[in-house]
Amino acid sequence: MFLAKAILEGANQGLGEALGGLLGGGGQQRGGRGAGTGGNIGGIIGGIVNLISEATAAQYTPEPPPTRQHFTNVEASESEEVRWFRHQFAQLAGPDMEVGATDLMHILNKVLAKHKDLKTDGFSLDTCRSIVSVMDSDTTGKLGFEEFKYLWNNIKKWQCVYKQYHRDGSGYLGSAQLRGALQAAGFQLNEQLYQMIIRRYADEEGRMDFNNFISCLVRLDAMFRAFKSLDRDADGLIQVSIREWLQLTMYS
Amino acid sequence: MFLAKAILEGANQGLGEALGGLLGGGGQQRGGRGAGTGGNIGGIIGGIVNLISEATAAQYTPEPPPTRQHFTNVEASESEEVRWFRHQFAQLAGPDMEVGATDLMHILNKVLAKHKDLKTDGFSLDTCRSIVSVMDSDTTGKLGFEEFKYLWNNIKKWQCVYKQYHRDGSGYLGSAQLRGALQAAGFQLNEQLYQMIIRRYADEEGRMDFNNFISCLVRLDAMFRAFKSLDRDADGLIQVSIREWLQLTMYS
Repeated sequence: MFLAKAILEGANQGLGEALGGLLGGGGQQRGGRGAGTGGNIGGIIGGIVNLISEATAAQYTPEPPPTRQHFTNVEASESEEVRWFRHQFAQLAGPDMEVGATDLMHILNKVLAKHKDLKTDGFSLDTCRSIVSVMDSDTTGKLGFEEFKYLWNNIKKWQCVYKQYHRDGSGYLGSAQLRGALQAAGFQLNEQLYQMIIRRYADEEGRMDFNNFISCLVRLDAMFRAFKSLDRDADGLIQVSIREWLQLTMYS
Repeated sequence: MFLAKAILEGANQGLGEALGGLLGGGGQQRGGRGAGTGGNIGGIIGGIVNLISEATAAQYTPEPPPTRQHFTNVEASESEEVRWFRHQFAQLAGPDMEVGATDLMHILNKVLAKHKDLKTDGFSLDTCRSIVSVMDSDTTGKLGFEEFKYLWNNIKKWQCVYKQYHRDGSGYLGSAQLRGALQAAGFQLNEQLYQMIIRRYADEEGRMDFNNFISCLVRLDAMFRAFKSLDRDADGLIQVSIREWLQLTMYS
Protein backbone atom coordinates (compact mmCIF):
# COMPACT_ATOMS: atom_id res chain seq x y z
CA MET A 1 0.00 0.00 0.00
CA PHE A 2 1.03 3.55 -0.43
CA LEU A 3 1.59 3.97 3.25
CA ALA A 4 3.71 0.84 3.42
CA LYS A 5 5.34 1.78 0.13
CA ALA A 6 6.40 5.07 1.69
CA ILE A 7 7.91 3.18 4.58
CA LEU A 8 9.69 0.72 2.32
CA GLU A 9 11.24 3.42 0.17
CA GLY A 10 12.93 4.67 3.30
CA ALA A 11 14.17 8.06 4.29
CA ASN A 12 15.93 8.91 1.06
CA GLN A 13 12.95 8.37 -1.14
CA GLY A 14 9.77 8.33 0.87
CA LEU A 15 6.34 8.64 -0.56
CA GLY A 16 7.59 11.27 -2.97
CA GLU A 17 9.47 8.69 -5.01
CA ALA A 18 6.63 6.23 -4.82
CA LEU A 19 4.13 8.87 -5.99
CA GLY A 20 6.25 10.01 -8.89
CA GLY A 21 8.19 12.72 -7.12
CA LEU A 22 5.26 15.01 -6.48
CA LEU A 23 6.47 15.96 -3.05
CA GLY A 24 8.68 19.06 -3.16
CA GLY A 25 12.17 18.68 -1.78
CA GLY A 26 12.97 19.52 1.81
CA GLY A 27 10.64 20.35 4.61
CA GLN A 28 8.76 23.52 5.34
CA GLN A 29 9.39 25.02 8.72
CA ARG A 30 6.12 25.89 10.35
CA GLY A 31 6.33 28.77 12.78
CA GLY A 32 5.33 28.05 16.33
CA ARG A 33 2.99 30.43 18.03
CA GLY A 34 5.58 32.91 19.14
CA ALA A 35 8.47 32.05 16.91
CA GLY A 36 8.09 34.98 14.58
CA THR A 37 7.26 37.69 17.07
CA GLY A 38 10.59 39.24 17.78
CA GLY A 39 10.64 40.64 21.23
CA ASN A 40 7.71 38.64 22.65
CA ILE A 41 9.53 36.48 25.19
CA GLY A 42 6.36 34.85 26.44
CA GLY A 43 5.40 33.95 22.92
CA ILE A 44 8.83 32.52 22.18
CA ILE A 45 8.81 30.45 25.34
CA GLY A 46 5.30 29.28 24.51
CA GLY A 47 6.50 28.29 21.07
CA ILE A 48 9.41 26.32 22.49
CA VAL A 49 7.15 24.58 24.98
CA ASN A 50 4.80 23.67 22.13
CA LEU A 51 7.66 22.29 20.05
CA ILE A 52 8.91 20.17 22.93
CA SER A 53 5.37 19.04 23.64
CA GLU A 54 4.89 18.03 20.00
CA ALA A 55 8.25 16.28 19.82
CA THR A 56 7.68 14.26 22.99
CA ALA A 57 3.99 13.46 22.38
CA ALA A 58 4.82 10.30 20.49
CA GLN A 59 8.07 8.38 20.07
CA TYR A 60 8.93 4.98 18.66
CA THR A 61 11.87 3.38 16.92
CA PRO A 62 10.66 0.68 14.54
CA GLU A 63 12.52 -2.35 13.24
CA PRO A 64 14.18 -1.88 9.84
CA PRO A 65 11.48 -2.14 7.18
CA PRO A 66 10.90 -5.34 5.18
CA THR A 67 13.13 -5.71 2.15
CA ARG A 68 11.77 -6.31 -1.31
CA GLN A 69 13.50 -9.59 -1.87
CA HIS A 70 11.42 -12.23 -3.56
CA PHE A 71 10.51 -15.35 -1.65
CA THR A 72 12.82 -17.42 -3.84
CA ASN A 73 15.81 -15.28 -2.96
CA VAL A 74 17.25 -17.58 -0.33
CA GLU A 75 20.39 -16.44 1.43
CA ALA A 76 23.12 -19.01 1.91
CA SER A 77 23.68 -17.83 5.47
CA GLU A 78 20.02 -18.04 6.46
CA SER A 79 19.43 -19.38 9.95
CA GLU A 80 17.55 -22.60 10.66
CA GLU A 81 14.71 -20.55 12.12
CA VAL A 82 14.32 -18.42 8.99
CA ARG A 83 14.50 -21.54 6.80
CA TRP A 84 11.70 -23.13 8.87
CA PHE A 85 9.67 -19.94 8.62
CA ARG A 86 10.16 -19.89 4.85
CA HIS A 87 8.82 -23.43 4.70
CA GLN A 88 5.76 -22.48 6.78
CA PHE A 89 5.15 -19.48 4.55
CA ALA A 90 5.28 -21.63 1.43
CA GLN A 91 2.54 -23.83 2.86
CA LEU A 92 0.38 -20.88 3.80
CA ALA A 93 0.76 -18.74 0.71
CA GLY A 94 -1.01 -19.41 -2.56
CA PRO A 95 0.65 -20.20 -5.89
CA ASP A 96 1.55 -16.52 -6.14
CA MET A 97 3.66 -16.90 -3.00
CA GLU A 98 1.69 -14.15 -1.31
CA VAL A 99 -0.57 -14.20 1.75
CA GLY A 100 -3.93 -12.49 1.46
CA ALA A 101 -6.29 -11.30 4.19
CA THR A 102 -8.23 -14.56 4.33
CA ASP A 103 -5.03 -16.63 4.63
CA LEU A 104 -3.81 -14.30 7.35
CA MET A 105 -7.06 -14.60 9.25
CA HIS A 106 -6.89 -18.39 9.16
CA ILE A 107 -3.30 -18.61 10.34
CA LEU A 108 -3.74 -16.04 13.12
CA ASN A 109 -6.86 -17.75 14.46
CA LYS A 110 -5.23 -21.18 14.17
CA VAL A 111 -2.29 -20.00 16.27
CA LEU A 112 -4.60 -18.23 18.73
CA ALA A 113 -6.56 -21.41 19.33
CA LYS A 114 -3.44 -22.84 20.96
CA HIS A 115 -3.12 -19.95 23.42
CA LYS A 116 -6.06 -20.28 25.77
CA ASP A 117 -4.65 -17.64 28.08
CA LEU A 118 -5.11 -14.89 25.48
CA LYS A 119 -8.58 -13.37 25.63
CA THR A 120 -9.85 -12.85 22.12
CA ASP A 121 -12.90 -13.16 19.91
CA GLY A 122 -10.59 -13.92 17.01
CA PHE A 123 -9.24 -11.86 14.15
CA SER A 124 -12.01 -10.79 11.79
CA LEU A 125 -11.59 -10.58 8.03
CA ASP A 126 -12.00 -6.78 8.26
CA THR A 127 -9.10 -6.57 10.69
CA CYS A 128 -6.93 -8.78 8.52
CA ARG A 129 -7.68 -6.69 5.44
CA SER A 130 -6.57 -3.64 7.34
CA ILE A 131 -3.38 -5.38 8.52
CA VAL A 132 -2.54 -6.54 5.00
CA SER A 133 -3.10 -3.04 3.64
CA VAL A 134 -0.76 -1.32 6.06
CA MET A 135 1.91 -3.94 5.45
CA ASP A 136 1.52 -4.18 1.69
CA SER A 137 4.59 -2.19 0.57
CA ASP A 138 4.53 -3.24 -3.06
CA THR A 139 0.76 -2.74 -3.45
CA THR A 140 0.08 -6.23 -4.72
CA GLY A 141 -2.87 -6.48 -2.34
CA LYS A 142 -1.20 -9.34 -0.45
CA LEU A 143 1.91 -9.94 1.66
CA GLY A 144 5.07 -11.36 0.20
CA PHE A 145 7.54 -13.34 2.27
CA GLU A 146 9.51 -10.37 3.64
CA GLU A 147 6.40 -8.35 4.46
CA PHE A 148 4.84 -11.35 6.18
CA LYS A 149 8.03 -12.13 8.12
CA TYR A 150 8.23 -8.56 9.35
CA LEU A 151 4.62 -8.72 10.52
CA TRP A 152 5.03 -12.12 12.13
CA ASN A 153 8.16 -11.13 14.04
CA ASN A 154 6.34 -8.10 15.42
CA ILE A 155 3.32 -10.17 16.40
CA LYS A 156 5.56 -12.66 18.24
CA LYS A 157 7.27 -9.83 20.09
CA TRP A 158 3.98 -8.17 21.02
CA GLN A 159 2.44 -11.44 22.09
CA CYS A 160 5.21 -11.74 24.68
CA VAL A 161 4.49 -8.23 25.88
CA TYR A 162 0.76 -8.99 26.16
CA LYS A 163 1.41 -12.14 28.16
CA GLN A 164 3.76 -10.27 30.45
CA TYR A 165 1.27 -7.49 31.17
CA HIS A 166 -2.11 -9.18 31.57
CA ARG A 167 -1.13 -10.19 35.05
CA ASP A 168 -4.55 -10.47 36.62
CA GLY A 169 -5.33 -13.68 34.77
CA SER A 170 -8.36 -12.23 32.98
CA GLY A 171 -6.71 -12.63 29.62
CA TYR A 172 -7.37 -8.92 28.93
CA LEU A 173 -5.14 -5.89 29.27
CA GLY A 174 -6.71 -3.32 31.54
CA SER A 175 -6.20 0.38 30.80
CA ALA A 176 -3.70 0.62 33.66
CA GLN A 177 -1.66 -2.22 32.18
CA LEU A 178 -1.91 -0.87 28.66
CA ARG A 179 0.51 1.99 29.23
CA GLY A 180 3.19 -0.38 30.45
CA ALA A 181 2.52 -2.78 27.60
CA LEU A 182 2.78 -0.06 24.94
CA GLN A 183 5.99 1.21 26.49
CA ALA A 184 7.42 -2.30 26.61
CA ALA A 185 6.58 -2.55 22.91
CA GLY A 186 8.59 0.61 22.36
CA PHE A 187 5.82 3.20 22.06
CA GLN A 188 6.06 6.39 24.13
CA LEU A 189 2.77 8.26 23.87
CA ASN A 190 1.28 11.19 25.73
CA GLU A 191 -1.85 10.86 27.84
CA GLN A 192 -4.16 12.16 25.12
CA LEU A 193 -2.96 9.49 22.69
CA TYR A 194 -3.34 6.74 25.30
CA GLN A 195 -6.91 7.80 25.98
CA MET A 196 -7.65 7.82 22.28
CA ILE A 197 -6.26 4.30 21.88
CA ILE A 198 -8.34 3.08 24.79
CA ARG A 199 -11.46 4.65 23.25
CA ARG A 200 -10.78 3.02 19.90
CA TYR A 201 -9.46 -0.40 20.85
CA ALA A 202 -10.69 -1.24 24.35
CA ASP A 203 -14.19 -2.36 25.33
CA GLU A 204 -16.64 -0.35 27.40
CA GLU A 205 -14.94 -1.51 30.57
CA GLY A 206 -11.58 -0.25 29.33
CA ARG A 207 -10.23 -3.76 28.71
CA MET A 208 -8.32 -4.65 25.56
CA ASP A 209 -8.30 -8.17 24.20
CA PHE A 210 -5.46 -9.72 22.24
CA ASN A 211 -6.71 -9.22 18.69
CA ASN A 212 -7.40 -5.54 19.37
CA PHE A 213 -3.97 -5.17 20.96
CA ILE A 214 -2.28 -6.61 17.89
CA SER A 215 -4.45 -4.57 15.47
CA CYS A 216 -3.59 -1.45 17.39
CA LEU A 217 0.14 -2.07 17.44
CA VAL A 218 0.36 -3.12 13.80
CA ARG A 219 -1.32 0.14 12.91
CA LEU A 220 0.73 2.26 15.33
CA ASP A 221 3.96 0.78 14.01
CA ALA A 222 2.89 1.43 10.42
CA MET A 223 1.74 5.00 11.08
CA PHE A 224 4.97 5.89 12.85
CA ARG A 225 7.02 4.43 10.03
CA ALA A 226 4.98 6.24 7.39
CA PHE A 227 5.43 9.55 9.14
CA LYS A 228 9.16 9.08 9.56
CA SER A 229 9.51 8.11 5.96
CA LEU A 230 7.70 11.25 4.81
CA ASP A 231 9.49 13.54 7.25
CA ARG A 232 12.63 13.65 5.17
CA ASP A 233 14.12 16.66 6.90
CA ALA A 234 13.25 15.22 10.31
CA ASP A 235 11.65 18.45 11.49
CA GLY A 236 8.67 16.64 12.99
CA LEU A 237 6.26 17.86 10.31
CA ILE A 238 4.95 16.37 7.10
CA GLN A 239 3.04 18.02 4.30
CA VAL A 240 0.62 16.07 2.13
CA SER A 241 -1.81 16.73 -0.70
CA ILE A 242 -5.37 15.36 -0.78
CA ARG A 243 -4.27 12.55 -3.05
CA GLU A 244 -1.40 11.51 -0.78
CA TRP A 245 -3.66 11.91 2.28
CA LEU A 246 -6.28 9.57 0.81
CA GLN A 247 -3.67 7.04 -0.27
CA LEU A 248 -2.22 6.99 3.23
CA THR A 249 -5.50 6.89 5.13
CA MET A 250 -7.74 4.84 2.87
CA TYR A 251 -5.34 2.00 2.11
CA SER A 252 -5.03 0.97 5.75
CA MET B 1 -12.50 11.65 17.55
CA PHE B 2 -9.81 14.05 16.64
CA LEU B 3 -10.41 13.55 12.95
CA ALA B 4 -14.13 14.11 13.37
CA LYS B 5 -13.44 16.91 15.84
CA ALA B 6 -11.36 18.65 13.18
CA ILE B 7 -14.24 18.35 10.78
CA LEU B 8 -16.75 19.63 13.31
CA GLU B 9 -14.70 22.68 14.19
CA GLY B 10 -15.00 23.71 10.59
CA ALA B 11 -12.79 25.77 8.37
CA ASN B 12 -12.23 28.63 10.77
CA GLN B 13 -10.89 26.47 13.54
CA GLY B 14 -9.86 23.08 12.26
CA LEU B 15 -7.73 20.66 14.11
CA GLY B 16 -5.53 23.49 15.31
CA GLU B 17 -8.22 24.76 17.66
CA ALA B 18 -9.10 21.29 18.76
CA LEU B 19 -5.48 20.49 19.54
CA GLY B 20 -4.88 23.64 21.50
CA GLY B 21 -3.79 25.86 18.63
CA LEU B 22 -0.59 24.05 17.87
CA LEU B 23 -0.98 24.45 14.15
CA GLY B 24 0.65 27.65 12.93
CA GLY B 25 -1.54 30.13 11.08
CA GLY B 26 -1.87 30.00 7.33
CA GLY B 27 -0.60 27.45 4.92
CA GLN B 28 2.89 26.83 3.66
CA GLN B 29 3.26 26.98 -0.06
CA ARG B 30 5.20 23.99 -1.22
CA GLY B 31 7.17 24.57 -4.39
CA GLY B 32 6.29 22.38 -7.33
CA ARG B 33 9.07 20.74 -9.21
CA GLY B 34 9.84 23.61 -11.47
CA ALA B 35 8.24 26.49 -9.68
CA GLY B 36 11.39 28.00 -8.33
CA THR B 37 13.67 27.60 -11.32
CA GLY B 38 13.29 30.89 -13.08
CA GLY B 39 13.75 30.41 -16.76
CA ASN B 40 13.11 26.68 -16.88
CA ILE B 41 9.90 26.62 -18.95
CA GLY B 42 9.71 22.84 -19.03
CA GLY B 43 10.05 22.70 -15.27
CA ILE B 44 7.37 25.34 -14.79
CA ILE B 45 4.98 23.55 -17.10
CA GLY B 46 5.74 20.30 -15.30
CA GLY B 47 4.99 21.99 -12.01
CA ILE B 48 1.67 23.31 -13.30
CA VAL B 49 0.73 19.90 -14.66
CA ASN B 50 1.55 18.35 -11.28
CA LEU B 51 -0.56 20.92 -9.45
CA ILE B 52 -3.52 20.30 -11.74
CA SER B 53 -3.01 16.56 -11.39
CA GLU B 54 -2.96 16.84 -7.61
CA ALA B 55 -5.99 19.13 -7.54
CA THR B 56 -8.09 16.86 -9.75
CA ALA B 57 -6.96 13.53 -8.28
CA ALA B 58 -9.71 13.57 -5.70
CA GLN B 59 -12.80 15.75 -5.33
CA TYR B 60 -15.87 15.57 -3.14
CA THR B 61 -18.30 18.02 -1.57
CA PRO B 62 -19.61 16.63 1.71
CA GLU B 63 -22.85 17.42 3.49
CA PRO B 64 -22.57 20.09 6.22
CA PRO B 65 -21.03 18.45 9.29
CA PRO B 66 -23.16 17.29 12.23
CA THR B 67 -23.94 20.01 14.77
CA ARG B 68 -23.16 19.64 18.44
CA GLN B 69 -26.71 20.00 19.64
CA HIS B 70 -27.71 17.67 22.41
CA PHE B 71 -30.35 15.05 21.75
CA THR B 72 -32.79 16.89 24.01
CA ASN B 73 -32.50 20.06 21.97
CA VAL B 74 -35.66 19.60 19.95
CA GLU B 75 -36.46 22.25 17.39
CA ALA B 76 -40.05 23.45 17.22
CA SER B 77 -39.96 23.32 13.44
CA GLU B 78 -38.65 19.77 13.25
CA SER B 79 -40.19 17.67 10.50
CA GLU B 80 -42.24 14.55 11.17
CA GLU B 81 -39.42 12.47 9.71
CA VAL B 82 -36.81 13.92 12.06
CA ARG B 83 -39.16 13.47 15.03
CA TRP B 84 -39.66 9.83 14.09
CA PHE B 85 -35.91 9.40 13.73
CA ARG B 86 -35.36 10.98 17.16
CA HIS B 87 -37.78 8.46 18.63
CA GLN B 88 -35.95 5.57 16.95
CA PHE B 89 -32.63 6.89 18.22
CA ALA B 90 -33.96 7.10 21.78
CA GLN B 91 -34.87 3.43 21.63
CA LEU B 92 -31.49 2.43 20.24
CA ALA B 93 -29.22 4.57 22.41
CA GLY B 94 -28.37 3.76 25.98
CA PRO B 95 -29.16 5.91 29.05
CA ASP B 96 -26.34 8.21 27.97
CA MET B 97 -28.25 8.93 24.75
CA GLU B 98 -25.29 7.80 22.72
CA VAL B 99 -24.86 4.90 20.30
CA GLY B 100 -21.77 2.75 20.68
CA ALA B 101 -20.17 0.34 18.23
CA THR B 102 -22.12 -2.67 19.46
CA ASP B 103 -25.45 -0.81 19.20
CA LEU B 104 -24.51 0.34 15.72
CA MET B 105 -23.63 -3.18 14.65
CA HIS B 106 -26.97 -4.49 15.87
CA ILE B 107 -29.05 -1.84 14.15
CA LEU B 108 -27.14 -2.05 10.86
CA ASN B 109 -27.43 -5.83 10.71
CA LYS B 110 -31.09 -5.70 11.71
CA VAL B 111 -31.83 -3.34 8.84
CA LEU B 112 -29.70 -5.38 6.45
CA ALA B 113 -31.66 -8.53 7.23
CA LYS B 114 -34.66 -6.89 5.56
CA HIS B 115 -32.77 -6.22 2.33
CA LYS B 116 -32.13 -9.59 0.79
CA ASP B 117 -30.93 -8.05 -2.44
CA LEU B 118 -27.86 -6.56 -0.77
CA LYS B 119 -24.97 -9.00 -0.72
CA THR B 120 -23.26 -8.82 2.64
CA ASP B 121 -21.68 -10.91 5.38
CA GLY B 122 -22.87 -8.32 7.87
CA PHE B 123 -21.17 -5.46 9.65
CA SER B 124 -18.52 -6.71 12.06
CA LEU B 125 -17.81 -5.12 15.42
CA ASP B 126 -14.38 -4.03 14.13
CA THR B 127 -15.99 -2.18 11.24
CA CYS B 128 -18.51 -0.52 13.52
CA ARG B 129 -15.77 0.59 15.89
CA SER B 130 -14.00 2.20 12.98
CA ILE B 131 -17.21 3.91 11.82
CA VAL B 132 -17.95 5.25 15.30
CA SER B 133 -14.39 6.57 15.59
CA VAL B 134 -14.45 8.54 12.37
CA MET B 135 -17.85 10.00 13.24
CA ASP B 136 -17.14 10.72 16.90
CA SER B 137 -16.64 14.50 16.76
CA ASP B 138 -16.83 15.13 20.48
CA THR B 139 -14.57 12.19 21.39
CA THR B 140 -17.04 10.59 23.77
CA GLY B 141 -16.35 7.22 22.19
CA LYS B 142 -19.95 6.96 20.99
CA LEU B 143 -22.31 8.75 18.62
CA GLY B 144 -24.73 11.38 19.83
CA PHE B 145 -27.98 12.11 18.02
CA GLU B 146 -26.60 14.57 15.47
CA GLU B 147 -23.55 12.43 14.68
CA PHE B 148 -25.76 9.36 14.28
CA LYS B 149 -28.27 11.23 12.11
CA TYR B 150 -25.50 12.42 9.82
CA LEU B 151 -24.19 8.90 9.46
CA TRP B 152 -27.64 7.41 8.93
CA ASN B 153 -28.57 9.92 6.25
CA ASN B 154 -25.38 9.13 4.38
CA ILE B 155 -25.97 5.39 4.66
CA LYS B 156 -29.50 5.79 3.28
CA LYS B 157 -28.20 7.82 0.37
CA TRP B 158 -25.40 5.35 -0.38
CA GLN B 159 -27.73 2.38 -0.09
CA CYS B 160 -29.77 3.87 -2.94
CA VAL B 161 -26.61 4.28 -5.00
CA TYR B 162 -25.61 0.67 -4.32
CA LYS B 163 -29.01 -0.64 -5.34
CA GLN B 164 -28.90 1.44 -8.49
CA TYR B 165 -25.49 0.18 -9.55
CA HIS B 166 -25.47 -3.54 -8.78
CA ARG B 167 -27.45 -4.18 -11.89
CA ASP B 168 -26.40 -7.72 -12.61
CA GLY B 169 -28.45 -9.11 -9.77
CA SER B 170 -25.46 -10.61 -7.97
CA GLY B 171 -25.93 -8.31 -5.01
CA TYR B 172 -22.30 -7.18 -5.40
CA LEU B 173 -20.77 -4.16 -7.04
CA GLY B 174 -18.24 -5.18 -9.66
CA SER B 175 -15.14 -3.05 -10.20
CA ALA B 176 -16.62 -1.67 -13.41
CA GLN B 177 -19.75 -0.57 -11.54
CA LEU B 178 -17.80 0.82 -8.63
CA ARG B 179 -16.56 3.88 -10.50
CA GLY B 180 -20.08 4.89 -11.42
CA ALA B 181 -21.31 4.21 -7.90
CA LEU B 182 -18.58 6.34 -6.31
CA GLN B 183 -19.27 9.15 -8.75
CA ALA B 184 -22.98 8.94 -8.05
CA ALA B 185 -22.12 9.25 -4.36
CA GLY B 186 -20.20 12.42 -5.19
CA PHE B 187 -16.62 11.14 -5.18
CA GLN B 188 -14.36 11.99 -8.12
CA LEU B 189 -11.17 9.95 -7.84
CA ASN B 190 -8.29 9.27 -10.19
CA GLU B 191 -7.51 5.78 -11.46
CA GLN B 192 -4.81 5.11 -8.87
CA LEU B 193 -7.22 5.84 -6.03
CA TYR B 194 -9.93 3.63 -7.56
CA GLN B 195 -7.48 0.76 -7.85
CA MET B 196 -6.42 1.25 -4.25
CA ILE B 197 -10.02 1.18 -3.07
CA ILE B 198 -10.67 -2.00 -5.01
CA ARG B 199 -7.57 -3.60 -3.47
CA ARG B 200 -8.67 -2.64 0.04
CA TYR B 201 -12.43 -3.15 -0.06
CA ALA B 202 -13.23 -5.61 -2.86
CA ASP B 203 -12.77 -9.37 -2.75
CA GLU B 204 -10.28 -11.34 -4.83
CA GLU B 205 -12.67 -11.28 -7.75
CA GLY B 206 -12.92 -7.51 -7.61
CA ARG B 207 -16.45 -7.55 -6.21
CA MET B 208 -17.50 -5.31 -3.36
CA ASP B 209 -20.32 -6.25 -1.03
CA PHE B 210 -22.61 -3.82 0.75
CA ASN B 211 -20.93 -3.61 4.13
CA ASN B 212 -17.55 -2.94 2.51
CA PHE B 213 -19.12 -0.31 0.25
CA ILE B 214 -20.56 1.50 3.24
CA SER B 215 -17.32 1.19 5.29
CA CYS B 216 -15.39 2.58 2.38
CA LEU B 217 -17.68 5.54 1.82
CA VAL B 218 -18.00 6.42 5.50
CA ARG B 219 -14.22 6.55 5.64
CA LEU B 220 -13.81 8.42 2.34
CA ASP B 221 -16.33 11.03 3.42
CA ALA B 222 -14.58 11.46 6.77
CA MET B 223 -11.08 11.69 5.29
CA PHE B 224 -12.14 14.28 2.74
CA ARG B 225 -13.82 16.34 5.44
CA ALA B 226 -10.81 16.10 7.73
CA PHE B 227 -8.47 17.27 4.99
CA LYS B 228 -10.69 20.18 4.04
CA SER B 229 -11.01 21.21 7.65
CA LEU B 230 -7.24 21.24 8.08
CA ASP B 231 -6.55 22.95 4.77
CA ARG B 232 -7.50 26.36 6.08
CA ASP B 233 -5.90 28.31 3.26
CA ALA B 234 -7.40 25.92 0.69
CA ASP B 235 -4.09 25.44 -1.09
CA GLY B 236 -4.56 21.71 -1.39
CA LEU B 237 -1.87 20.92 1.20
CA ILE B 238 -1.96 20.19 4.90
CA GLN B 239 0.88 20.04 7.38
CA VAL B 240 0.72 17.82 10.45
CA SER B 241 2.95 16.84 13.36
CA ILE B 242 3.43 13.24 14.53
CA ARG B 243 0.91 13.80 17.30
CA GLU B 244 -1.74 15.16 14.95
CA TRP B 245 -0.93 12.43 12.42
CA LEU B 246 -1.45 9.69 14.98
CA GLN B 247 -4.66 11.27 16.27
CA LEU B 248 -6.03 11.44 12.76
CA THR B 249 -4.96 7.98 11.63
CA MET B 250 -5.27 5.91 14.78
CA TYR B 251 -8.70 7.10 15.89
CA SER B 252 -10.42 5.86 12.77
